[in-house]
Amino acid sequence: MAVGAAQYVRAMHTVAVLALDHVIPFDLSVPIETFGRTRLPDGRDAYRVVVCAPSPGEEVATGAFTLRAPYGLDALRTADTVVVPGTATPLAPLPAPVLEALREVAARGTRIASICTGAFPLAATGLLDGLRATTHWAAAALLAETYPAVEVDPDVLHVDNGQLLTSAGAAAGLDLCLHLVRRDYGSAVAADAARLSVMPLEREGGQAQFIVAPWPATPRGAELEPLLAWLEAHLDEEVTVERMARQAGTSTRTLIRHFKEQTGTTPLRWLHRARVRRGQHLLETTGYSVERIAGQVGFGSAGAFRERFKRTTGVSPQGYRRAFGGAGAA
Amino acid sequence: MAVGAAQYVRAMHTVAVLALDHVIPFDLSVPIETFGRTRLPDGRDAYRVVVCAPSPGEEVATGAFTLRAPYGLDALRTADTVVVPGTATPLAPLPAPVLEALREVAARGTRIASICTGAFPLAATGLLDGLRATTHWAAAALLAETYPAVEVDPDVLHVDNGQLLTSAGAAAGLDLCLHLVRRDYGSAVAADAARLSVMPLEREGGQAQFIVAPWPATPRGAELEPLLAWLEAHLDEEVTVERMARQAGTSTRTLIRHFKEQTGTTPLRWLHRARVRRGQHLLETTGYSVERIAGQVGFGSAGAFRERFKRTTGVSPQGYRRAFGGAGAA
Repeated sequence: MAVGAAQYVRAMHTVAVLALDHVIPFDLSVPIETFGRTRLPDGRDAYRVVVCAPSPGEEVATGAFTLRAPYGLDALRTADTVVVPGTATPLAPLPAPVLEALREVAARGTRIASICTGAFPLAATGLLDGLRATTHWAAAALLAETYPAVEVDPDVLHVDNGQLLTSAGAAAGLDLCLHLVRRDYGSAVAADAARLSVMPLEREGGQAQFIVAPWPATPRGAELEPLLAWLEAHLDEEVTVERMARQAGTSTRTLIRHFKEQTGTTPLRWLHRARVRRGQHLLETTGYSVERIAGQVGFGSAGAFRERFKRTTGVSPQGYRRAFGGAGAA
Repeated sequence: MAVGAAQYVRAMHTVAVLALDHVIPFDLSVPIETFGRTRLPDGRDAYRVVVCAPSPGEEVATGAFTLRAPYGLDALRTADTVVVPGTATPLAPLPAPVLEALREVAARGTRIASICTGAFPLAATGLLDGLRATTHWAAAALLAETYPAVEVDPDVLHVDNGQLLTSAGAAAGLDLCLHLVRRDYGSAVAADAARLSVMPLEREGGQAQFIVAPWPATPRGAELEPLLAWLEAHLDEEVTVERMARQAGTSTRTLIRHFKEQTGTTPLRWLHRARVRRGQHLLETTGYSVERIAGQVGFGSAGAFRERFKRTTGVSPQGYRRAFGGAGAA
């Protein structure tokens, strides 16, 4: 198992972290933390982490401090993995040299992973077109609108397309990095890295459990709004698609089309999600039993509510209350 | 509810984050992320976050990049809360002006919270003497040895002494900051902050679930070492304190004293912890049933193992396997 120094350097996996203007300090530090702490079973560093910026001599603003990166875009070209952290200005145009460098290394097969709103610059390269991708749940609707060729999934902690990976907001970047460590070196090394970051290797549930705003927050078009308000006020009642169509004064066929166009989903899925969201609110703010909440949000039984809640958020109502409850008890 | 701009500025809680030399980027960014994203129910910022350094004009090294903080130590004096992130050099002497500023603001009642190895500079001020405190589990023994007047608890995610708070490693800093948001503004605001950071507001279990090394890793004194090795080899057997004393060729009274001096705990607590640790290893690396593992680590029943495992780590054996298992299945 003796490895010479030269071979050691060659064998080490290099991760380049791209510090764009207005990079979010937390998203920047997540790959530095996770990859930088990872050790192989024999104690060697598993990764070399280099931070690079479009203009390495210049300071990069982060809002809280300015930083100077020791490397430039050349570091992307020699990296095995490129990480694109989120920025506070996701719609800012990507500098042409960055666009070029990302496309070039992608064509060469380099792995690229984004954290939080880092999905926006990655999408700007066109590399995510036709692929599933995720971002911070609060930015998912904006990503879908800005890059319609990207199939945005707001419910997961990360999406692995093999060469291209995206992750949800903030702490979900830790989940993504641990996922990559597991891909590269197996579960035992990744479990050690998780312990060093005091994070579970795999979290139960997806990003859905953190979503409280309706998605999309504002429907793309106004026709449905009166119906959606009516539905929110009648979540405890039995509501069929036919009843919705009558309420909206239209045919079920037209209603389904309007839902698809304006909310991106079907009437019943929208209703289920609204009920789960109301259920989340009640679990957070009251001490009501799951049975009582199930009735208040229109489920015939606690069992049906539990199943739908778990399917939507990835956690049980009880697990959700443990994670986010407390206001009712305070 | 209309609030004038001046009142708004005065009312806002200021958090000063101290960037010492070799600050860990992740620990630095955790309070920037959590407090910086927190909003009050009416949409206003809940905190003003300022990053400060001992010499604000000079660049601070982090290992991965250098940073320039916009504020100096004066920011500590006007803050409501001071956060001390961990550094890569926890035993480095604290600059005299930092020591002085921390003691001065503490005397004035300012709240001070440390993240990860940030407990070391905080302990260096003497402020933690006689108090319970925690740090990254891998640094807990070093903290206890370096600052014997501090009562180090390596098993929790954070310790709240009211004015002085400490947290465990890395991601546990997120738990601490969310805890402070809850103290300052209540559960609903904290739950929103948690969602924005894609973190549960409260995590199940303490830091113990991440600890695999024995604690302390090396006993302070060599007499016990042969007995500890013997115990590790006989974890599956029934071992009483009397049997340990016979094995060590000493009285139970002397044995108990040696354990206290050299491991900081009692013989049975040490044995329970060693058994739980072995159980963790088996849960990670094998697909054995909990019943089988209970037998292999010296518990008479799966129920007794489950109870002890949960009491020590804060999570169930099944929960632990979900979080850290996978190597056995790979």
